[in-house]
Amino acid sequence: MGARGAEGKVTITEIARQAGVSVPTVSRVVNGRSDVAPQTRARVEDLLRRHGYRRRPAAPGTRAALLDLVFDDLDSPWAVEIIRGVEEVAHAAGVGTVVSAIHGRSGDAREWMRNLRARASDGVILVTSALDPTLYEELRILGVPLVVVDPAGSPALDAPTIGAANWSGGMAATEHLLSLGHRRIGLIAGPPRLLCSRARLDGYCAALESAGITMDPSLVVTGDFRPESGFTACTTLLDLPEPPTALFAASDQMALGAIEALRRRGLRVPEDMSVVGFDDLPEVRWSAPPLTTIRQPLADMGALAVRTVLRLTRDEQPDSPRVELGTDLVVRASTAPPA
Amino acid sequence: MGARGAEGKVTITEIARQAGVSVPTVSRVVNGRSDVAPQTRARVEDLLRRHGYRRRPAAPGTRAALLDLVFDDLDSPWAVEIIRGVEEVAHAAGVGTVVSAIHGRSGDAREWMRNLRARASDGVILVTSALDPTLYEELRILGVPLVVVDPAGSPALDAPTIGAANWSGGMAATEHLLSLGHRRIGLIAGPPRLLCSRARLDGYCAALESAGITMDPSLVVTGDFRPESGFTACTTLLDLPEPPTALFAASDQMALGAIEALRRRGLRVPEDMSVVGFDDLPEVRWSAPPLTTIRQPLADMGALAVRTVLRLTRDEQPDSPRVELGTDLVVRASTAPPA
Repeated sequence: MGARGAEGKVTITEIARQAGVSVPTVSRVVNGRSDVAPQTRARVEDLLRRHGYRRRPAAPGTRAALLDLVFDDLDSPWAVEIIRGVEEVAHAAGVGTVVSAIHGRSGDAREWMRNLRARASDGVILVTSALDPTLYEELRILGVPLVVVDPAGSPALDAPTIGAANWSGGMAATEHLLSLGHRRIGLIAGPPRLLCSRARLDGYCAALESAGITMDPSLVVTGDFRPESGFTACTTLLDLPEPPTALFAASDQMALGAIEALRRRGLRVPEDMSVVGFDDLPEVRWSAPPLTTIRQPLADMGALAVRTVLRLTRDEQPDSPRVELGTDLVVRASTAPPA
Repeated sequence: MGARGAEGKVTITEIARQAGVSVPTVSRVVNGRSDVAPQTRARVEDLLRRHGYRRRPAAPGTRAALLDLVFDDLDSPWAVEIIRGVEEVAHAAGVGTVVSAIHGRSGDAREWMRNLRARASDGVILVTSALDPTLYEELRILGVPLVVVDPAGSPALDAPTIGAANWSGGMAATEHLLSLGHRRIGLIAGPPRLLCSRARLDGYCAALESAGITMDPSLVVTGDFRPESGFTACTTLLDLPEPPTALFAASDQMALGAIEALRRRGLRVPEDMSVVGFDDLPEVRWSAPPLTTIRQPLADMGALAVRTVLRLTRDEQPDSPRVELGTDLVVRASTAPPA
């Protein structure tokens, strides 16, 4: 399992000559060691960049096969689903999965990059939008292939991306509620800066439009995907002069927050209000009531990310630079016809 | 970051001489390479075992610092809490966390062991009871330090263990229900083969006894920690001639299953039945109603496991070979005085 092939024809010896330093010094820079003077490092990195330097594949069997799986945060049940999908495929390929969280902080991201170089990871799967552009550039220089899961707002990204069919999912959730007879359907949307939020919102609007219903902007409240925001958004919708009879929450966690807000008001799900979520986290099979939701194939997305990054390590191209895996409506007990 | 120091005085050269093979062959065996004849491998491994061979620490800076974090399965929100705690401490120490699942299958465990050797991991944190004894032995031969989180029934384990104060937690959950005025308190227990299940059960019995209540065995039903089993166990308890007025479920997931069983019968929590869980998974902050539970410090346990395994890699001893971190009662909305 090597890194990218030697596309760049320049050798470390040549870089060393041009930089006026020794070969071991260039090697230390490439491998992220700290014992290089800052000016020397800058000169060498500049040359590496200009020559589009790629690491050579290591001789077979000489080092561990590793992938880096990087999250913003590990505080969501969302994360473990992706880890599960990644680990299964990586393990079968004899590749270890190094899991990191960089908390959207550039210090943590730099530290992670330093560790990545030190362990000579063969590829990176990024489940975050927060990586600094200079770090993308650094990965490119190191020749470490990158695949991004669930791109959330970086359309200019120069890496294969694997997402879910968010628009179709938003449409399916809304159509389900329409088919039950609901006409006033509230949406608890995700943060508008994320592409997935916008796609789910657009799917909601498209379903309403197909049913000949004019979208009522007062029925759309924005959250941040976390339960607390679902709770607050649901309260806002319940306080409308004419509240909705059904809710589509753009994440399961916001749906759970909404269900708690309903419970506090003495309202029952689904008798008094239908609720649909988005994600199909394992836990919502056992929410009270079990949640009707849109299944986002998180484990499958993780598995495909590994297969894609492993293809890249062999200098093969992915089937498509941008893939969206299908989402499915899962009907459980939180939706019913309006009272 | 090296492996264990050279406690065993024998060198690879000596092993090679005794086995009648070359030094590179011994090295290939030690590093888990496949290109060694089975008979030769067996002879070398036997010699390594007899001499208590320990890997030497690698020269500083020559290889990546890695820890292996091994689960039975990655299908529980439980897992991500431990990963979070491990990753945070490991990342700060510049150590990568390789996450694996072995699914309690010996084939997967062997495959993992082979990968572990290939990547020369510096330490192992095991969150499983399913590792084959011969694999423990193999870790010992490789000199890779091992720490076990939440030992669930392997009292003879020759490795530091980090658990939670399960007995105290079982007692605190039951005392909370007693203090609200409950006298008939059902227990949905975990699998009896796991030590943690037995400790929680004993804590429940101790609290009842302290309150002068004779334990009624019909009020104790066994589950397997999963929601389905909580659902079934709750149904059994509700069908008793005299059902309990409160339930202590030995895992949050069983508590969620029980709450769903109550909802299906039209019973409200906590008005008709109080429910206490165990774990404090992030999701139960937003169950309906938010769950009163015993907080098990999973992330802290993961963090302590890393600190312990890093001490072992420096040939330092852990503070104590067996540590239990404290559990805490977290009161939310699922418990109230009996009707």
